[in-house]
Amino acid sequence: MKKSFALFFIFILSLFYSQNLISYVNPLVGTKNMGHTFPGAAAPFGMVQLSPETNQVPYAKDGKYNPETYQYCSGYQYKDQTIFGFSHTHFSGVGHSDLGDFLVMPTVGKLNLEPGEANQPKSGYHSQFSHQTEKAEPGYYSVFLDDYGIKAELTASERVGFHQYIFPKSTDSHIILDLMSNIYNYDDKNVWTFVRVENNQTVIGYRETTGWARTRKVYFAMKFSKPFKSYGRKRYEKVEYNGFYRKFNENENFPEFAGRKIRAYFDFDTEENEKILVKFALSSVSTEGALKNLDTEIPHWDFNKVKAETQSKWENELSKIKVETINNEDKKVFYTSLYHTMLSPVIYQDVDGKYLGLDQNIHEAKNFTNYTIYSLWDTYRALHPLYNLIQPKRNNDFVKSMLAHYNESVHKALPIWSHYSNENWCMIGYHAVSVLADAIAKGTTDVDINQALEAMQNSSNLKYYDGIGEYLKYGYVPEDKSNSSVSKTLEYAYDDWCIAQVAKKTGKTDVQTEYLKRSENYKNVYDAKTGFMRPKLSDGTFKAEFDPMDTHGQGFIEGNAYNYGLYVPQNIPKMIEMMGGKNKFSKHLDGIFDTEIADKYIEKNEDITRDGIIGNYVHGNEPGHHIPYLYNWTNDAWKTQEKVRMVLRKMYHDREDGLCGNDDAGQMSAWYIFSAIGFYPVLPGSNEYAIGSPLVKSAIVDLGNGKKLIIETKNQSDKNIYVKKIMVNGKIIKNHILNYEEIKNGGKILFEMSNSH
Amino acid sequence: MKKSFALFFIFILSLFYSQNLISYVNPLVGTKNMGHTFPGAAAPFGMVQLSPETNQVPYAKDGKYNPETYQYCSGYQYKDQTIFGFSHTHFSGVGHSDLGDFLVMPTVGKLNLEPGEANQPKSGYHSQFSHQTEKAEPGYYSVFLDDYGIKAELTASERVGFHQYIFPKSTDSHIILDLMSNIYNYDDKNVWTFVRVENNQTVIGYRETTGWARTRKVYFAMKFSKPFKSYGRKRYEKVEYNGFYRKFNENENFPEFAGRKIRAYFDFDTEENEKILVKFALSSVSTEGALKNLDTEIPHWDFNKVKAETQSKWENELSKIKVETINNEDKKVFYTSLYHTMLSPVIYQDVDGKYLGLDQNIHEAKNFTNYTIYSLWDTYRALHPLYNLIQPKRNNDFVKSMLAHYNESVHKALPIWSHYSNENWCMIGYHAVSVLADAIAKGTTDVDINQALEAMQNSSNLKYYDGIGEYLKYGYVPEDKSNSSVSKTLEYAYDDWCIAQVAKKTGKTDVQTEYLKRSENYKNVYDAKTGFMRPKLSDGTFKAEFDPMDTHGQGFIEGNAYNYGLYVPQNIPKMIEMMGGKNKFSKHLDGIFDTEIADKYIEKNEDITRDGIIGNYVHGNEPGHHIPYLYNWTNDAWKTQEKVRMVLRKMYHDREDGLCGNDDAGQMSAWYIFSAIGFYPVLPGSNEYAIGSPLVKSAIVDLGNGKKLIIETKNQSDKNIYVKKIMVNGKIIKNHILNYEEIKNGGKILFEMSNSH
Repeated sequence: MKKSFALFFIFILSLFYSQNLISYVNPLVGTKNMGHTFPGAAAPFGMVQLSPETNQVPYAKDGKYNPETYQYCSGYQYKDQTIFGFSHTHFSGVGHSDLGDFLVMPTVGKLNLEPGEANQPKSGYHSQFSHQTEKAEPGYYSVFLDDYGIKAELTASERVGFHQYIFPKSTDSHIILDLMSNIYNYDDKNVWTFVRVENNQTVIGYRETTGWARTRKVYFAMKFSKPFKSYGRKRYEKVEYNGFYRKFNENENFPEFAGRKIRAYFDFDTEENEKILVKFALSSVSTEGALKNLDTEIPHWDFNKVKAETQSKWENELSKIKVETINNEDKKVFYTSLYHTMLSPVIYQDVDGKYLGLDQNIHEAKNFTNYTIYSLWDTYRALHPLYNLIQPKRNNDFVKSMLAHYNESVHKALPIWSHYSNENWCMIGYHAVSVLADAIAKGTTDVDINQALEAMQNSSNLKYYDGIGEYLKYGYVPEDKSNSSVSKTLEYAYDDWCIAQVAKKTGKTDVQTEYLKRSENYKNVYDAKTGFMRPKLSDGTFKAEFDPMDTHGQGFIEGNAYNYGLYVPQNIPKMIEMMGGKNKFSKHLDGIFDTEIADKYIEKNEDITRDGIIGNYVHGNEPGHHIPYLYNWTNDAWKTQEKVRMVLRKMYHDREDGLCGNDDAGQMSAWYIFSAIGFYPVLPGSNEYAIGSPLVKSAIVDLGNGKKLIIETKNQSDKNIYVKKIMVNGKIIKNHILNYEEIKNGGKILFEMSNSH
Repeated sequence: MKKSFALFFIFILSLFYSQNLISYVNPLVGTKNMGHTFPGAAAPFGMVQLSPETNQVPYAKDGKYNPETYQYCSGYQYKDQTIFGFSHTHFSGVGHSDLGDFLVMPTVGKLNLEPGEANQPKSGYHSQFSHQTEKAEPGYYSVFLDDYGIKAELTASERVGFHQYIFPKSTDSHIILDLMSNIYNYDDKNVWTFVRVENNQTVIGYRETTGWARTRKVYFAMKFSKPFKSYGRKRYEKVEYNGFYRKFNENENFPEFAGRKIRAYFDFDTEENEKILVKFALSSVSTEGALKNLDTEIPHWDFNKVKAETQSKWENELSKIKVETINNEDKKVFYTSLYHTMLSPVIYQDVDGKYLGLDQNIHEAKNFTNYTIYSLWDTYRALHPLYNLIQPKRNNDFVKSMLAHYNESVHKALPIWSHYSNENWCMIGYHAVSVLADAIAKGTTDVDINQALEAMQNSSNLKYYDGIGEYLKYGYVPEDKSNSSVSKTLEYAYDDWCIAQVAKKTGKTDVQTEYLKRSENYKNVYDAKTGFMRPKLSDGTFKAEFDPMDTHGQGFIEGNAYNYGLYVPQNIPKMIEMMGGKNKFSKHLDGIFDTEIADKYIEKNEDITRDGIIGNYVHGNEPGHHIPYLYNWTNDAWKTQEKVRMVLRKMYHDREDGLCGNDDAGQMSAWYIFSAIGFYPVLPGSNEYAIGSPLVKSAIVDLGNGKKLIIETKNQSDKNIYVKKIMVNGKIIKNHILNYEEIKNGGKILFEMSNSH
């Protein structure tokens, strides 16, 4: 024991004096404007993400979507001066929302169960706060609640949120549990709530909601460090039948409550500076599971111990890439980005391996850890390839979670956009095939590739989904049959290429041939006359009206023809040839960066704002993320280096508004990580990365297989943005392509930088 | 195999030629007026009770309780000429309602998903029917649906309903699954519904409701014998958010539906007389559990096989008492009554032993079978004592189910009125203690009596429940603190006596003394001046206004002071002494039977109707069920014989209106069974039965322990109602008390009947 204590002490010391990477992370980055990140406390990939809600905006007003809603996808906006409480589930950076489960708020004084209005101080239980008292670190958040004189501190393990509230002296202290609070709060979002007060320190229950996840149920177990002296609840709904009322006063000290809309409270006497701690565990399985999660992960009341453990987990995760940079800000942006890549997918199983499946039955994860939150249209591009590089074991769990989803799916389809045992079908494509193909290409998964191939094939043949039937019939999605038809055709064709790669590995040449043919479908939506990918109708003609600058009604989704119309990663040379050859294409790319897009084209789009645009290049959304790298396939690879460095510098910084658009579950940050270390996965599912212009001075990348990849630069500086020479393990690379085979066992990449190309 | 087949054949033959007791059962008895029974198909104690709904009456109209509702507690009224469909769960004879899950209705012609109005033919999917085509047997029901030319046949195993529909020729045949239909249908009763169409013959899902059971969830699995050609669903609710609509036409052939209010349909082409069969399994655990129940219990499509098996189970249950009677009608009433005692409690666990506990977690029943539906204020009186006599093993399971409920209860209380993992707290008392005490007294349970005692004590000390706190403080329930105070005081005092009996067995004399003292609390509400039990206030005075004929506001519930005020089974001699001695008491009893109660006293009472009244004696409800037997403790035991025989004759017969009030989960029928064989459990928890006047000529009672009790009569006739001599195992009984010890190992009781006393 003594020895292990000493080792632990050394480890902690070493954390603070040498490796302290968490100090470079600012969880507030992205909380201003449309980054949609949250500043609260979470363990890496933890299910519980305990974070403040700074407003409670209804999803709809007067029966119409309320545009105020969008900025609160993660519950927090930096501009706000109010805190409504701390809830346990949040998306990080996502472009639609849900969650916000189990809002806890400490108050002092006369009990008020109404949340109140943000712009009316003291109108409800919310409190004023100031950023001066706010502290956000990986795994830790604290803030002073001005209205009540309460200091709130939060930390979390994977499945348990840990609250520490330091109260003033009062005989009227409360902890409110608002079971009606939701992010994206529709009027009837709450389906049912069930709560039991097991004793004066333990509360369990569950809540069901219908929202983005149509059928969603989360169980909880809540323990207080100190017995409450009294408690109660209020139902905020029309109750058609209540047989209990004759027997009980259910409002006060009655240990069982259930209903659609409930707020509960727990009362305390507190001394000056008295700490009351709350442990709050989640489960998708049962209250029994939640209690087990709670007692297993945090069996004590030592807040600082959990904080230290979780921060040590973060330090460990962040140290998977150790970088030196030319300035301190870059290091902050780098580690904040790396932090943001590890907030989802989240662990979605109890400590005993049980989880709620997509079929709404309880399953047990055997030989893998089950995760949820898959924003695949975003994350297949760079986030999963990043996991493949630095988190191969975890990515294998993601792959297995996706196959579990497939097995539990009534459609026999891999996830599209999935969270909390639901498929929400958001965005387009069947991009799980890309994640599977990339893991199989890199050899980082041990799944049965024949089973994987079957899942991929089924997913790509779901005829009733989003124009796939027509895609199979016509060789493209006709715009008159299914909108966003060009985007769908391009993405499906890429996905089909991924399937072909896996078919090749299985030796099923017929399948390979079939999907290679499908992967050429991008050609069917190319209009040689205009030189653009363009929506085609079922009669074979192109749709007459066409404005390639416009994002709406032009056959694309969340991107115009410039940004989305170059999506043929599976055959870039062919695309370039089709579009007029290397030189013409290079100039076309220049035009994207140089031509300022007019306001009218972006004003109605929540996902594309001026912050994330350079010229007409939209970095704030995903479809063009590969564009800066496309110069590599022309004769002007130096322009890739120039543009990549420009995007790294212009589109990311270390302040609250440091993300230029939704982080999209980490995709935006993953683009940064790859680009900052010098290469990018333009074609997930292949073994190739495109080389750009590294921003870091050096990096040591832990490949998760015991091997380390060392990235070094020579003459790195803010002006030396061009890559004069690239050596991989002593061999010069000429084609700006880095092959995974060359680095998978570690080694060294040397970038020799220069101020001229 | 051959030998067992031969044995089976002999068994079947013997069923039809000798033992055919099921032929005496008329499930339609009690379906006219307020019996609240259902005529459909069920296995003995089966969870699935598949029965027609003849109307769909809303629980409330214009925001007020709709008095039409009450007659539809079990979904069926004999007077109706319409059938809306066949649902899978029903209460038998209960005085409040719920259930009616998963209404299935076959139709032909243009699809109509509206139920329509009963008084408007063809206004919806309902059909006209006539009793001429109707056949109701234990485990089998059939009817012809006139509007569609469909013959419907139903049978059931314990967990699976089996439908057989014989269609006419049509290209437009449908089977509707109405997931909005409920018995006692509040506007917002449906909480959530989830359905998956797994393939063109299999559908799974669940439904959650809030009603009498506040938080209720039932899973199902449904299999069709023939693939449907198409299917669809309609949502009947305001949908706040639906992300699927952009991707799919969810209304038709989309395999996943969820929402609050849904009706689904399945389409077929049918030939003339084509049978389409549906197997429909329930589970409280999961759709996986429902499927397992389905495939385990009915792994084939042989409707007649299931019907024969279930009817054979009924034959076996009914043969637990084999009677000979003086006429055929008596036999019909007897076996119909016996049938009605075996429709609840119902099995409430999957074939693998898993069930949903009161804590809403999944449990596994180990060493017992879990049951639900406990209407204990009714059933502790005679139904559970009957089980103790003829179903001791099953009653042991009931006792264990109640202890499981206790262990899962946040209140640490035994069930009051419990169904489907809920406590609905209906009626008064903590009468599970009576059931436990009776089983312990009779030695028919193997539970740990110390644990049982702890559960009984906790249940009796739940201070916040229904005046118990005040009862403990004042020695009676003060009417100004908690209404129905006299009924509560009397029932609590009896229950306390039960606890004392168990305490005695454990050797805990302090507990015994405490509860014996509590059992005397009936004295505290006796008003010597009026000679009645009478509501007392917390200041120790009796409430001023008092009308012993009135049922409302007089300190009683569902009974007036005459009927409810004699409830001191634990010390009848003391009560009689208190009330003026044997002769005065005998005259008081005469007055109850002889004085006609005025209409004004019963007109506002749903539970007491003229059908169930003799003079002022109310047999149609429970509190006075022991009254005819009380003469035994006076000098006029012959009057017990006279009254019991009168009640047997006047209050029961073999037609649809053959029950004079709610059967109350079998209590009314259990009164009949006991009384018809000559004795009655006036004091459950003791070893004594009061002797009355047997109606049968003879009976062979299978005691479930390998022993048989033979009851024989001499000179039995309709006029010879008096018991001249009683011999038990050759010993003459003089005090009109039959001791369980004397009969528990079987033997013979001989009643010598006479036309004079």
